[in-house]
Amino acid sequence: MIKLSSARFGCFLFLAYCLLTFPRGSRAQTAAELPIMPLPAQAVQGQGQFKIDGHFGIALQGYTEPRLLRARQRFLDTLSRETGIPLWRQAQFNQPDFIIQTAGRSDSVQQLGEDESYHLEVTPTQVRLTAPNPLGVLHGLQTFLLLVRTTPQGFSVPVVAIDDQPRFPWRGLMIDVSRHFIPIPVIEHDLDGMEAVKLNVFHWHLSDDQGFRVESKKFPLLQEKGSDGLYYTQDQIRQVIDYARDRGIRVVPEFDMPCHTTSWFVGYPQLASGPAPYHIAIHMGVHSAAMDPTKESTYKFLNVFIGEMANLFPDQYFHIGGDECNGKEWNANPQIQSFMKAHGLATNAALQAYFTAKVQKLVAKHHKIMEGWDEVLQPETPKDVVIQSWRGLASLSQAARQGNRGILSTPYYLNLDFPTSRYYLADPLGDEAATLDPEQKSRILGGEAAMWSEYVSAETINSQIWPYLAAVAERFWSPQLVRDVDSMYSRLAIVSWRLGYYGLNSGADVNGMLQRMSGDPDPVPLKVFAAVVGPPSGYTRYRLEGGETYTTSTPLNRLVDVVPPESETARKFRDLVQQIVAGKATAQQWQQARQWLTLWRDNDAQLQPLLVQSELTQELVPLSHDLNQVAVIGLQALDDLENSRTVDAQDRQHNLELLKSAEQPRAVLLDMIAPSVELLVQATRTE
Amino acid sequence: MIKLSSARFGCFLFLAYCLLTFPRGSRAQTAAELPIMPLPAQAVQGQGQFKIDGHFGIALQGYTEPRLLRARQRFLDTLSRETGIPLWRQAQFNQPDFIIQTAGRSDSVQQLGEDESYHLEVTPTQVRLTAPNPLGVLHGLQTFLLLVRTTPQGFSVPVVAIDDQPRFPWRGLMIDVSRHFIPIPVIEHDLDGMEAVKLNVFHWHLSDDQGFRVESKKFPLLQEKGSDGLYYTQDQIRQVIDYARDRGIRVVPEFDMPCHTTSWFVGYPQLASGPAPYHIAIHMGVHSAAMDPTKESTYKFLNVFIGEMANLFPDQYFHIGGDECNGKEWNANPQIQSFMKAHGLATNAALQAYFTAKVQKLVAKHHKIMEGWDEVLQPETPKDVVIQSWRGLASLSQAARQGNRGILSTPYYLNLDFPTSRYYLADPLGDEAATLDPEQKSRILGGEAAMWSEYVSAETINSQIWPYLAAVAERFWSPQLVRDVDSMYSRLAIVSWRLGYYGLNSGADVNGMLQRMSGDPDPVPLKVFAAVVGPPSGYTRYRLEGGETYTTSTPLNRLVDVVPPESETARKFRDLVQQIVAGKATAQQWQQARQWLTLWRDNDAQLQPLLVQSELTQELVPLSHDLNQVAVIGLQALDDLENSRTVDAQDRQHNLELLKSAEQPRAVLLDMIAPSVELLVQATRTE
Repeated sequence: MIKLSSARFGCFLFLAYCLLTFPRGSRAQTAAELPIMPLPAQAVQGQGQFKIDGHFGIALQGYTEPRLLRARQRFLDTLSRETGIPLWRQAQFNQPDFIIQTAGRSDSVQQLGEDESYHLEVTPTQVRLTAPNPLGVLHGLQTFLLLVRTTPQGFSVPVVAIDDQPRFPWRGLMIDVSRHFIPIPVIEHDLDGMEAVKLNVFHWHLSDDQGFRVESKKFPLLQEKGSDGLYYTQDQIRQVIDYARDRGIRVVPEFDMPCHTTSWFVGYPQLASGPAPYHIAIHMGVHSAAMDPTKESTYKFLNVFIGEMANLFPDQYFHIGGDECNGKEWNANPQIQSFMKAHGLATNAALQAYFTAKVQKLVAKHHKIMEGWDEVLQPETPKDVVIQSWRGLASLSQAARQGNRGILSTPYYLNLDFPTSRYYLADPLGDEAATLDPEQKSRILGGEAAMWSEYVSAETINSQIWPYLAAVAERFWSPQLVRDVDSMYSRLAIVSWRLGYYGLNSGADVNGMLQRMSGDPDPVPLKVFAAVVGPPSGYTRYRLEGGETYTTSTPLNRLVDVVPPESETARKFRDLVQQIVAGKATAQQWQQARQWLTLWRDNDAQLQPLLVQSELTQELVPLSHDLNQVAVIGLQALDDLENSRTVDAQDRQHNLELLKSAEQPRAVLLDMIAPSVELLVQATRTE
Repeated sequence: MIKLSSARFGCFLFLAYCLLTFPRGSRAQTAAELPIMPLPAQAVQGQGQFKIDGHFGIALQGYTEPRLLRARQRFLDTLSRETGIPLWRQAQFNQPDFIIQTAGRSDSVQQLGEDESYHLEVTPTQVRLTAPNPLGVLHGLQTFLLLVRTTPQGFSVPVVAIDDQPRFPWRGLMIDVSRHFIPIPVIEHDLDGMEAVKLNVFHWHLSDDQGFRVESKKFPLLQEKGSDGLYYTQDQIRQVIDYARDRGIRVVPEFDMPCHTTSWFVGYPQLASGPAPYHIAIHMGVHSAAMDPTKESTYKFLNVFIGEMANLFPDQYFHIGGDECNGKEWNANPQIQSFMKAHGLATNAALQAYFTAKVQKLVAKHHKIMEGWDEVLQPETPKDVVIQSWRGLASLSQAARQGNRGILSTPYYLNLDFPTSRYYLADPLGDEAATLDPEQKSRILGGEAAMWSEYVSAETINSQIWPYLAAVAERFWSPQLVRDVDSMYSRLAIVSWRLGYYGLNSGADVNGMLQRMSGDPDPVPLKVFAAVVGPPSGYTRYRLEGGETYTTSTPLNRLVDVVPPESETARKFRDLVQQIVAGKATAQQWQQARQWLTLWRDNDAQLQPLLVQSELTQELVPLSHDLNQVAVIGLQALDDLENSRTVDAQDRQHNLELLKSAEQPRAVLLDMIAPSVELLVQATRTE
């Protein structure tokens, strides 16, 4: 029998829940600010609107190609979903009031730095989208789709003139498909979302210790023994590349070497520095497996392999990884040690540099430009090598000073669950990079968000990427001065809804996972609880669970796998508390804070009976109990503050200690309310 | 600027909203009742449970074939989604504790009446699923999936022994893809859902006045001129047939003739009884276009066409429609009139019988058994012709008495928005059919739910079909005595949630459509309102909107297109009111009724500002206003009843008139609360 919880009283909890989730409209948007993301380089709004109804017609003028026809069809499909008006066929035959004017072609393989600009002019009677080539057309169509809104007169787009082009030419998302395999349909949804927010590079991390995910016809044991059977065929790879090209997105493959290579060695142990046999890694963290840089046979293998992959992936750039060699296998191999001595390679870093230099020549021989993580940069590295920085702006600036181009990745690790504002404010030309001279700055090509997949599966990955990636996309596309955090959060909420039209509706998944976890079709108290806990950001989960118990087949079905990286409710409660502490709160805000805390205080009694019914929720028992305690302390502090009552110093200290303790992660989750309650307690005064 | 409504106060409304949506648990399920649908023929529950974790292993024994391997894979995929445990690969290699034993093969083309039975035995340590052929295995796997639940010990299935087989051999769903084209992915989702609830016939209504939806290679103008470009290629048809066969589902095509044939005549006017040119119909209702039954060339054409389609669709049955000839074109054609005289065909029905008899011979010549709607039945109709009844049980019983087999369709028209209980209780062997003798009864093969697509699009169709079809499926599968409506609704709520694992999550779509309609990311007052209005059932919408203004390209994006056919909230409120009126209500129930009515009374003030912001919601303004009035009257009646106060006869009459007026449809929607409030007012006493 499936147990239905008698959640009748849980409903009352929604009362206050809604109160805090709703005042989104509180921040008035400036007149000049369009509700889209990324914001365009220039936009001038006018009076009136362009109406969208069944008579809508669209025509292509100037240069055309099949990709533009498909883009128009995709545009009409999305517009039909946005409005419910069946336009997907008819709009091609109606009298056109949306004119697309394309001046010419773009490169047959999309190049870094191609012109992506467009001009979009919306008047009450006509829309004109002009662009030098199809790339700008793709971007302009997405801008238009985000501008569609409903009005008393029907669906429309406001009158506006937009001149737009990207700030950076390299705007990417990296997805690691090795730790957890990510199927093609999920990747395609990500490419749809990337198109919507104008990203243009999909960086595909295709091999690592935990799995080799591409079919090689030259070395079939790579995928056959190096994976659990989950890999992409070459036909599928080509399908994704075509899909991406249709959306103005380059596909850059990464084959990480000489380390992160355990999966290669299961089928080809002769490449390794250590002894056979190797098994696919099932644990996370840095493994010791490393290619043997001293054997010519390694390079012979890599020459054939890189040749095959350079042929499969048309992009001009080829990523060879190069990160995180711990050198243990090299240290333990006498033959490698004597080779190092014989060739004057004093350190493992020097050995890796020797390897990288040889691989770079192979990559160049196959007509590609090499890309690698920070470690591949050496004084003698050829200047065309592109550095992707996981070490940050100091390291990236060093590359730029040395004459190499680079892209910034590390502050944009979406898997580390930082607040969106942190990703948003990190600028590829900020901090140390701000001190570079103009020529050096021009070498910083942009950035890439990264989604490492240790703790995400095909089911959960997109709720970690979206909508947050939209904020990163704005950083890479929009002018540097666009950095108002309140505006970002306000527009992110809208973009999040709109991404639903691209199949990226995270709300539905979360609901399904909470049902599954609790066995309840509508687990209200669990929803209230889930709204105020969050994963610790950074590497805490890796530290807490990265050991022997966690493997690549550990289920990712706990609350930590469901909750968003940043609690919106906690963020708004913090704003409320800051108003109170600053003495600026209105009576209504005091009242709101009290209602919230009452909600959390009372939720525990409703939630506990539900939690014990399922193995997956039992770990939440102490956390829910603590939320109750935190709320009790908060209510008391609120009361003391409101009545300007002095408190006993010892009680205050005791409460602060309780709060500190409640701020420790349990079940890999943090109580996101406790820090705000701490602010309240700190604001109280002792005798 | 997208306008964000200040819906802050809307949240309070959730208070009472939850109160009524939540007491699902109130009806205790009997110990013997499994929370699944359809209920099995026999089930004996035991003590304990079979645990599902990462060690789960599954093995096929006995007869095997690729379809069974794919079924196992699909089972593991669904089980993985239900649990979040990644079993899809590993479970095939683990030590098996789930043994599937298949005795032999099923027919290479699935036949009507094949053995579909299975035996499922769950013990704490092992699961055994045995079946005479793969069809039973498919059903048994779905039963297991519905039994999975979460417990304090993890995911598990209760110990149980199930002996199961269907009551009827023909259990279908008909989808009309002519009025609105339904794309393959949507059809595939329906087939997934059909497998989950053990339906075994997909009846594909492929041609009608508004569109011809199959590629014919012999007569390509059928699809090229007879559709708007939206049709299935023969390869796609084969793909769907394979997909269905994998799920134990037969695919029966229908080509409606001699009427409902406008789309044929656009490309081939020589088939018609009226003058060329013909244009694809864009309005609904019965059209006059009819084939010319008097020309031999018509049968020559049909011979080739039926031959081609008989070859494309392997099923033994071939549906030729035959419904709703109005005879106007025949009456107006002098040549046809003289033919009728010459051949002694006194009526149009006789002319159609002449046509049907000739077509039946063509169908038989191509080795198929003909199926048709009621109209094809004539005294001399061959006994193997199967009658599908849209006229109901009297008509169907007549067929059975005459020696023909038949299936019941008309009470199961999901597009007519009847309460699920009405579909559920209608029995193919009920009413007039109950008087048949056993042999006649055996000719009633089962039934088919029907989804005519005048008022559904690819976007909305599945929220009209699911989860309601599950109740119809239970009628066709489970023993006749299974007909407890409360149990059905209780289990339907669970099945609805589980269907989410099959991609049939209607909640997400509804939310997206309400957002789109209002332009608000979380339109709370609109949700409260939407929960208590519903479309009028039956043909009211056809009558209200079937005229000239409504065409096949009218947007289906209004509230009537979003709300479920039956308001769950209104159903529960009615139960509450019935308790009150019967004098059986508890104090808590009185209080609940008051909270509900207060919610609806106060919602209008929140909703009105939202409604006027969008063209799509403006039509709801009077309806929301009336809901407020109805609630005011209800609160007053509640108060009078609680205080045993007599009321003024004239006031009472006035209120009843107001309620009657509020019960009229506006915006093609009904206030589903008004009838219950009427009950309350009627219970009050005058002086």
